[in-house]
Amino acid sequence: MMLVSRNEAWAFMSKMLLDHFRSKVDFVNASVSENLLESVTAKVKENRFRKTAFEPAAETYLRGRFWKKSGFSEITGLTAGLRAVKQGEEVSILRRSCNIAAHAFRIIKPRIKPGRTELSVARELEDVMQSMGAKGPSFNLIVGFGPDSALPHHESSQRPLKKNETVLLDFGCVYNGYCSDLTRTYFMGKPDEEFKKIYSLVEAAQEAGVKKVRAGVCAREVDKICRDHIAQAGYGQYFIHGTGHGVGLEIHEAPTLNTKSVEVLKAGMAVTVEPGIYLYGKFGVRIEDSVLVKNNGCEILTK
Amino acid sequence: MMLVSRNEAWAFMSKMLLDHFRSKVDFVNASVSENLLESVTAKVKENRFRKTAFEPAAETYLRGRFWKKSGFSEITGLTAGLRAVKQGEEVSILRRSCNIAAHAFRIIKPRIKPGRTELSVARELEDVMQSMGAKGPSFNLIVGFGPDSALPHHESSQRPLKKNETVLLDFGCVYNGYCSDLTRTYFMGKPDEEFKKIYSLVEAAQEAGVKKVRAGVCAREVDKICRDHIAQAGYGQYFIHGTGHGVGLEIHEAPTLNTKSVEVLKAGMAVTVEPGIYLYGKFGVRIEDSVLVKNNGCEILTK
Repeated sequence: MMLVSRNEAWAFMSKMLLDHFRSKVDFVNASVSENLLESVTAKVKENRFRKTAFEPAAETYLRGRFWKKSGFSEITGLTAGLRAVKQGEEVSILRRSCNIAAHAFRIIKPRIKPGRTELSVARELEDVMQSMGAKGPSFNLIVGFGPDSALPHHESSQRPLKKNETVLLDFGCVYNGYCSDLTRTYFMGKPDEEFKKIYSLVEAAQEAGVKKVRAGVCAREVDKICRDHIAQAGYGQYFIHGTGHGVGLEIHEAPTLNTKSVEVLKAGMAVTVEPGIYLYGKFGVRIEDSVLVKNNGCEILTK
Repeated sequence: MMLVSRNEAWAFMSKMLLDHFRSKVDFVNASVSENLLESVTAKVKENRFRKTAFEPAAETYLRGRFWKKSGFSEITGLTAGLRAVKQGEEVSILRRSCNIAAHAFRIIKPRIKPGRTELSVARELEDVMQSMGAKGPSFNLIVGFGPDSALPHHESSQRPLKKNETVLLDFGCVYNGYCSDLTRTYFMGKPDEEFKKIYSLVEAAQEAGVKKVRAGVCAREVDKICRDHIAQAGYGQYFIHGTGHGVGLEIHEAPTLNTKSVEVLKAGMAVTVEPGIYLYGKFGVRIEDSVLVKNNGCEILTK
């Protein structure tokens, strides 16, 4: 539990974590606490801080209630806002994280052959990314073959790949604390007309979305251009999720890119653009890149 | 988001999850909702339910506040209590999960040799457990060599094992949804007197803890017997965490076994017993088993 003032920061933790924390973080006053919440309010009193606040969207019910009772205000986006815009070293670390993941796909793709299971491919992706310096996967990697590709949150299974079916890989790694996220879909064998049509449609929607990303554009606009593109072709009902999300220390962070988003993109934000079309029981196509928002457009990080 | 009554249950979710959910769960009324919270309160009104409650310890601040405003009561342990006692099939699945992990250690141990990195051992443990049917690891596996073994929450690193140092493995798998958890510590090479002394002490404390586990005993008593054992030998200040926790669908669930626990153990609960001694900068020893509480004692699941 941390209390941060303009000039100083305090971290309160269990005895178990103290030595470990101190060995990694040397710019915070770290101490052991039996009751984290009481330690924070005691420190507030001791320093006579007049205004204190917490982030309501990042707090549990019981802790939030305690802060309210202790006179803390709620400030939405207090920490999310600090994190959304990547600065200095963060950008190059994130770029490397995305680079590792994108490169891993190029290594893995020729090894994905009929007979391989989804889980074995997920595992090998992890191994390859780790061999390039990643700490581990940035989430439970999604490898979906055939009808499994139509489930946006599919859990990779022991299902083996057959000839002539869709391969969808949604993956990323954690490198130096920063998460990457990308999705590649392709067809193992000779794609039929339906796959080609759906793929081209998602590809065009994704390219239009990426082109739309720049500082000053509302996040909702990026969603809209992808959604309109797919809807105009008559597949609107099969694009069943938002277009993207911020990415950084967490795999999902601010801002959100969907039909309701009000955030305006700023230079330095890193977001995903990932439209998809899901034909339940048949196959799905999602194409996703992580991009860095710039004043005059964006940089595709997962190239 | 789920609403559960005596006779029926409703699940509200985004469009993205509906087909997937229905393919896995067929005994719940599943529907798409744009606003999960409002859907729940609308369903409550529609059914004229007079009493509604939520679990405060499992809720976010913003959602909990909404339930309160909507007239829901708080009931602590509402869901945790249901989960703590394992019933029917749950027991055999959990037993298998623990069995896989315990067996993986026996396979892995002879392969751990000087030069191997912590991460490569963690990875191989995962592979071996997966080859036995596990879905994946039940948490970020902790492999700590030498001084790293003294950090209870160590993150496995690229550190290679040297001759004559401590090896600590804290690991487990998810099998059919259920988590296992165990820790093994040993010495690579010829252990010195200090390691032997600390190891014997933790081993005796852990055995005393396991012996204490039975239905009707307060969780705090299990912690106390382990803690007293270590304290009496003068190492009390180096046992820097609680003695254990429940294990099941989540790696940490009810009950908790520490100095403050008030829960009374019941037959069918599954808990860990895991005392440790941590000499920061030198080495640490933790020994952990997952056990099933029975009326006349307990069954060690991670044998």
